[in-house]
Amino acid sequence: MKKSLGAQTLIFPTPVWCVGSYDLEGAPNVMTIAWGGICCSQPPCLTISLRKATYTYGNILERKAYTVSVPSTKYTAEADYFGIVSGREVNKFQATGLTPSRSTLVDAPFVEEFPMVVECKLLHHFEIGLHTQFIGEIIDVKVDGDLLLKEGIPDILKVSPLVYATKAQSYHQIGDVVGKAYTIGRKYK
Amino acid sequence: MKKSLGAQTLIFPTPVWCVGSYDLEGAPNVMTIAWGGICCSQPPCLTISLRKATYTYGNILERKAYTVSVPSTKYTAEADYFGIVSGREVNKFQATGLTPSRSTLVDAPFVEEFPMVVECKLLHHFEIGLHTQFIGEIIDVKVDGDLLLKEGIPDILKVSPLVYATKAQSYHQIGDVVGKAYTIGRKYK
Repeated sequence: MKKSLGAQTLIFPTPVWCVGSYDLEGAPNVMTIAWGGICCSQPPCLTISLRKATYTYGNILERKAYTVSVPSTKYTAEADYFGIVSGREVNKFQATGLTPSRSTLVDAPFVEEFPMVVECKLLHHFEIGLHTQFIGEIIDVKVDGDLLLKEGIPDILKVSPLVYATKAQSYHQIGDVVGKAYTIGRKYK
Repeated sequence: MKKSLGAQTLIFPTPVWCVGSYDLEGAPNVMTIAWGGICCSQPPCLTISLRKATYTYGNILERKAYTVSVPSTKYTAEADYFGIVSGREVNKFQATGLTPSRSTLVDAPFVEEFPMVVECKLLHHFEIGLHTQFIGEIIDVKVDGDLLLKEGIPDILKVSPLVYATKAQSYHQIGDVVGKAYTIGRKYK
């Protein structure tokens, strides 16, 4: 029997992504979000949603760029910290000892130690309500070379990204394969 | 050493969501997507991206509503099938034997057997490129009552949603907890 839980931002799964940006003085900042997703295949685009109150909001509008660094489970504490404090008050890279690498493609930094990075140029932004949606064109995807299944195909189990369980507020690792896409469903054709 | 994989829609994790809609004749349809995410907290909104060529695209514009049913790992084959064929050619509910339940809140059906359902009213749609972004206000979230951790909080391990690994094209289950949000990162404060 289904139970109604009301009008709220609750669905599974949601990601754990660390958004990199430069502030007006060129200091690198990074904040963690769970509101975002791929939003277009051509041009390849990634959307993230931010509150106006965040430091990152102004940074992205100014620099017209952002990166998304995907933390592995090894960096769960750092990713969590990036979502707890504001770049207005603290340099989060210094606090955690992680390295801000300057993207050569877009005007934003990424987290060097994280296994997967997506570099985006801002295309649009839409005010939805409390959150503003940023639409970024993906200029490049970078992955640590030893985490590939084969040429050009990252192994999600080796990248080991996090899933955020909203409401329960827990971070989870990725589990085993349960099926192959465009294959397991063919039995109904 | 990071390897550049080029400009493409590749990031981890992405969801496996089944979008429910009615066509002009009132027949229920459902299609599987991986491009989407929560995009605003107030009003609570969920975005999904669809190609104009999909049957669901026209349905949502006409009915101004959609649902997202979250398949559990048990229904991996059905979810995969929903992404392989078009509602123009086949009634996917009949083909799989799953049940289209009529939402009492929005003009769209959901998959009765799936453990979690989000019902949305269309607020906006934005043409990004090949894909159009639909922004839906979440009117209700429904979860099977026996899958709650405690009052109002679904257990992600019991709901057992899928994660889609793009490029590798594999479906994965959710793994163990690796940390508590707003807690594990406090050590850096």
